[in-house]
Amino acid sequence: MNAIPEAFVQKTAALSDEATRPFPNSRKIYVTGSRPDLRVPMREVTLTPTQTKTGLEENPPITLYDTSGPYTDPRARIDLLAGLPDLRGDWIAERGDTEQLSGPSSAFGQRRQSDPLLAHLRFAHRRAPRRATPGRNVTQMHYARQGIITPEMEFVAIRETLRLDALRTDPRYTKLLRQHRGEAFGANLPETITPEFVREEVARGRAIIPANINHPELEPMIIGRNFRVKINTNIGNSAVTSSIEEEVEKMVWSARWGGDTLMDLSTGKNIHETREWILRNAPVPIGTVPIYQALEKVDGTPEELTWEMFRDTLIEQAEQGVDYFTIHAGVLLRYVPLTADRLTGIVSRGGSIMAKWCLAHHQENFLYTHFAEICEIMKAYDVAFSLGDGLRPGSIADANDAAQFAELETLGELTKFAWEQDVQVMIEGPGHVPLQMIEENVTKELHDCFEAPFYTLGPLITDIAPAYDHITSGIGAANIGWYGTAMLCYVTPKEHLGLPDKQDVRDGIVTYKIAAHGADLAKGLPGAQIRDNALSKARFEFRWEDQFNLSLDPDRAREYHDRTMPHESHKVAHFCSMCGPHFCSMKITQDVRDYAEAHRLDDVTSALEEGMKAKASEFREEGGHIYRPI
Amino acid sequence: MNAIPEAFVQKTAALSDEATRPFPNSRKIYVTGSRPDLRVPMREVTLTPTQTKTGLEENPPITLYDTSGPYTDPRARIDLLAGLPDLRGDWIAERGDTEQLSGPSSAFGQRRQSDPLLAHLRFAHRRAPRRATPGRNVTQMHYARQGIITPEMEFVAIRETLRLDALRTDPRYTKLLRQHRGEAFGANLPETITPEFVREEVARGRAIIPANINHPELEPMIIGRNFRVKINTNIGNSAVTSSIEEEVEKMVWSARWGGDTLMDLSTGKNIHETREWILRNAPVPIGTVPIYQALEKVDGTPEELTWEMFRDTLIEQAEQGVDYFTIHAGVLLRYVPLTADRLTGIVSRGGSIMAKWCLAHHQENFLYTHFAEICEIMKAYDVAFSLGDGLRPGSIADANDAAQFAELETLGELTKFAWEQDVQVMIEGPGHVPLQMIEENVTKELHDCFEAPFYTLGPLITDIAPAYDHITSGIGAANIGWYGTAMLCYVTPKEHLGLPDKQDVRDGIVTYKIAAHGADLAKGLPGAQIRDNALSKARFEFRWEDQFNLSLDPDRAREYHDRTMPHESHKVAHFCSMCGPHFCSMKITQDVRDYAEAHRLDDVTSALEEGMKAKASEFREEGGHIYRPI
Repeated sequence: MNAIPEAFVQKTAALSDEATRPFPNSRKIYVTGSRPDLRVPMREVTLTPTQTKTGLEENPPITLYDTSGPYTDPRARIDLLAGLPDLRGDWIAERGDTEQLSGPSSAFGQRRQSDPLLAHLRFAHRRAPRRATPGRNVTQMHYARQGIITPEMEFVAIRETLRLDALRTDPRYTKLLRQHRGEAFGANLPETITPEFVREEVARGRAIIPANINHPELEPMIIGRNFRVKINTNIGNSAVTSSIEEEVEKMVWSARWGGDTLMDLSTGKNIHETREWILRNAPVPIGTVPIYQALEKVDGTPEELTWEMFRDTLIEQAEQGVDYFTIHAGVLLRYVPLTADRLTGIVSRGGSIMAKWCLAHHQENFLYTHFAEICEIMKAYDVAFSLGDGLRPGSIADANDAAQFAELETLGELTKFAWEQDVQVMIEGPGHVPLQMIEENVTKELHDCFEAPFYTLGPLITDIAPAYDHITSGIGAANIGWYGTAMLCYVTPKEHLGLPDKQDVRDGIVTYKIAAHGADLAKGLPGAQIRDNALSKARFEFRWEDQFNLSLDPDRAREYHDRTMPHESHKVAHFCSMCGPHFCSMKITQDVRDYAEAHRLDDVTSALEEGMKAKASEFREEGGHIYRPI
Repeated sequence: MNAIPEAFVQKTAALSDEATRPFPNSRKIYVTGSRPDLRVPMREVTLTPTQTKTGLEENPPITLYDTSGPYTDPRARIDLLAGLPDLRGDWIAERGDTEQLSGPSSAFGQRRQSDPLLAHLRFAHRRAPRRATPGRNVTQMHYARQGIITPEMEFVAIRETLRLDALRTDPRYTKLLRQHRGEAFGANLPETITPEFVREEVARGRAIIPANINHPELEPMIIGRNFRVKINTNIGNSAVTSSIEEEVEKMVWSARWGGDTLMDLSTGKNIHETREWILRNAPVPIGTVPIYQALEKVDGTPEELTWEMFRDTLIEQAEQGVDYFTIHAGVLLRYVPLTADRLTGIVSRGGSIMAKWCLAHHQENFLYTHFAEICEIMKAYDVAFSLGDGLRPGSIADANDAAQFAELETLGELTKFAWEQDVQVMIEGPGHVPLQMIEENVTKELHDCFEAPFYTLGPLITDIAPAYDHITSGIGAANIGWYGTAMLCYVTPKEHLGLPDKQDVRDGIVTYKIAAHGADLAKGLPGAQIRDNALSKARFEFRWEDQFNLSLDPDRAREYHDRTMPHESHKVAHFCSMCGPHFCSMKITQDVRDYAEAHRLDDVTSALEEGMKAKASEFREEGGHIYRPI
């Protein structure tokens, strides 16, 4: 056991208390698959009954996709100092194609491991890393192409489907299952996602399951446009600000609020140790941009970067368990001049580092020239590529230009190469793009990169709203998700201005959950509309608590309601503060509906023939004062 | 002079101080038209120069559309107790088709005017109302159809164009004028908007200029899909909460933050007096839903509504100066049953009131049967119709259904009728609509209502995010604006939960400014991208203050930046807190660009031939440490 400072222990303990509070009226359920240790977590929201004239009418529970991990399960013992349970350890070991190493095999990893000055920062319960035995390939894509359905594939199949089959045969859900037809832009969303469908999609390269064998704590998830749209959140310290415990806290909250994956973009101190703490406690896949850390190792001088030290960094991170790497291998020497006339040049950090390296050495990008060797590392740990868009536009003016699209074509070439090695790939996309130019990004990516999953940052649809770029980009994200992007990288209100704090992370995540869900609805993802229907029914029936609990952010919904209507009695009030007790359209509508139903108004012609005038006066007599005093 | 309570005077005085602070580095300019009293306000943002290797390079000022009225002009004397100057009084009087009445002609207006108990609430400097002389029609549409270009039309032509013609001949703007081609969905956005173009659009009914002759304080603006997309904000007290001075404050802030029009939706106490205070101080058109006040007059019992008292309410409000009325004349008796099977029935307040009235009386909606008489009132004051969508969907499940579209067809019929009377019309739209079903709303509205301007609430693209409905709806708003909606009615974070406070109004407005501007960019509105280009250039060059000042909310952008980088020196720092001084992609890019330019890298082939290896080592020698210590 290392010496963890007391302050750190206290901080993380306090966090864990707060972060393990289950969502209101929600419980964690597990759907078991074909083996007892394959238990897929979901969140079940219990609803209150509807008060009707004839008595209480049950509202069935709603099952939600749950990214929060064991943190929201009161039966789980959470200890950030020990890390999460080893969920996938047996699955990985059973495959018999990996070996446990005696310790880190990267030079840097070994150095950090043995440096006594780092003892106070080091995660205590670190496992020795695993690696593929020589000649073996341990990627999910490799298994899929062998026809093997892994536990990970079955897990995501169950997870994506959310008990939809059971709901379909349950009459309580009949109305809630009503859903509009989607416009899926060529996506193929089956009514039920089977493990075999998952296998096919992964084998085809149209979806990835990022799941490093050294991150057995993660709950498998899938990224592909024939599945629900996912969101990624970014955290990470910088030289200017932030600490390990803050970053771990942000990770836990990110998962709680709905982040599907998380990128650790740290560029400050103790990147290695920070990452270890995050990984050991992360129920979601973790991505990084290894060139950031490599650059730190050469004191921020891109010219000093070498393939050898970059390679060591990849191994260092792969052995910690990073699930996907952003690799800017498409920034080719000949593309760099294409950015010279741009309004905002190269804005991707990775892109600008590689551009500078290329120019300084007049050599081709070493990530490109050593791509085959990178693939060898990816295969040995199952790290997925997130091929970085180093030349993405940094402003509306630079959208969809020659530099951006030239790089995209190269990413397609690299995709093909990686796929020949059975290595999983997704493709990063922009950035800043006006609304009318978003669709072209998806069309071109699907064409040039052979339908590899697209993973975009926003895009921001205008440059003029710093401090609101979660919104400028959320608009672009909803649209690009609809057109076929598989994962949306969130943007917080602090984008362009500073590092996000916890509340910024929350605002960014909820905005992106909205965008992703809006895209799911638009594509017609089966069952996606159930949550909308259930929430709207609750709203219409003034079941305030149910409305809050079904929402993306129950705490804030309740808080906003309570600011104008603080009393508990208002939670059952048949009105809200917008209209007041004497003026509620929903209340009036309910009367209209009761009346219409009672008098079969749905058959208008016959109703008119029956003499509606008589009915009208009857209604007046019946109706009395519809506004019950509260 | 009435007895205004001291507390009120103090409050409004304090507000006026805060609200008259000009935007940073901005000044109010006026572009004079064909007559000296036709002075169109704009906001000019002064920028700092760019530091280049050869010295300072000027960045020309940027002109912005300005809705804030005299409040942001330090030369204006603001006194909320006296109201704004009578900008249009002469224009109206000169037309010689109106008469000044001796006092209000509505029974209710007269009663409120003479009630001694209301003295402490009454606006002191109230003008006697104006009305068309018998047989005359004073609408902008009527003039337009006579071939008359009114000062109002010229005003909006200048206002929309924002000195674009001058910029086009000024070489300092050449780069900033670069703009992507738009996808305008049939909109016709001319390179320069002439007064004659405005006249044609108004005559054709494709645009409206809401400008009641009793609201001479307003600065004319236009709503139509061949002009920039506008946004509306809603304020208003309810029986539960809020006061006159709060509502006036919200109005001033709404105009300051960018609201193009404002609806006063009060349903609480002293609606008449609140409205007077708002109108006399409002530089933007004001809309209302007269049925709300009518219902208050019958103590909230829809069955008791009569045409006569509704008519009196219309005259009361028209004589105060309301610029457009929401009239739910399309809620026909036979459509009501179409809502019975909905998930959320009728959610429009006006719609549910009229539905209830129809059922209770078994008579056709009196707004429909008396539509001709309503038109007579509209003509006499130039109040524009905002034909209400009383049957709009209140949930994703109910989007685009038979009830909604049946009403829309009736609104088309009413549009035709109103146009025969030369009365201006816009059409209200939903509501809650998933992304893939938004376009149909615009297509159908343009078809059924003969291209009358569309004015939509959001739409919200999902129901699951109460507390974030400015965002769920902002996404829908950007899309529907792009497809051809002329004005977007904002939604605040408190939608469905409570009454918005000042910060909610701010969040709602900025979100909708983003949506409207995103739509303008997408449509290809000439000159729209200048602001994006100027801001992005400032961002790329680390001109922090310019970046803040060009943004939609300079205060918040600055505040967010300062939270991580509080020192003044950071405002000129060549980095931001996201990357820190050693790791700035923009800084690196600048080096890349300098290098590329110096070595003519844009001619790649020849550069390669010239032997780039030599240049590379030269660059390394030259470059030294690019990360200057700050």
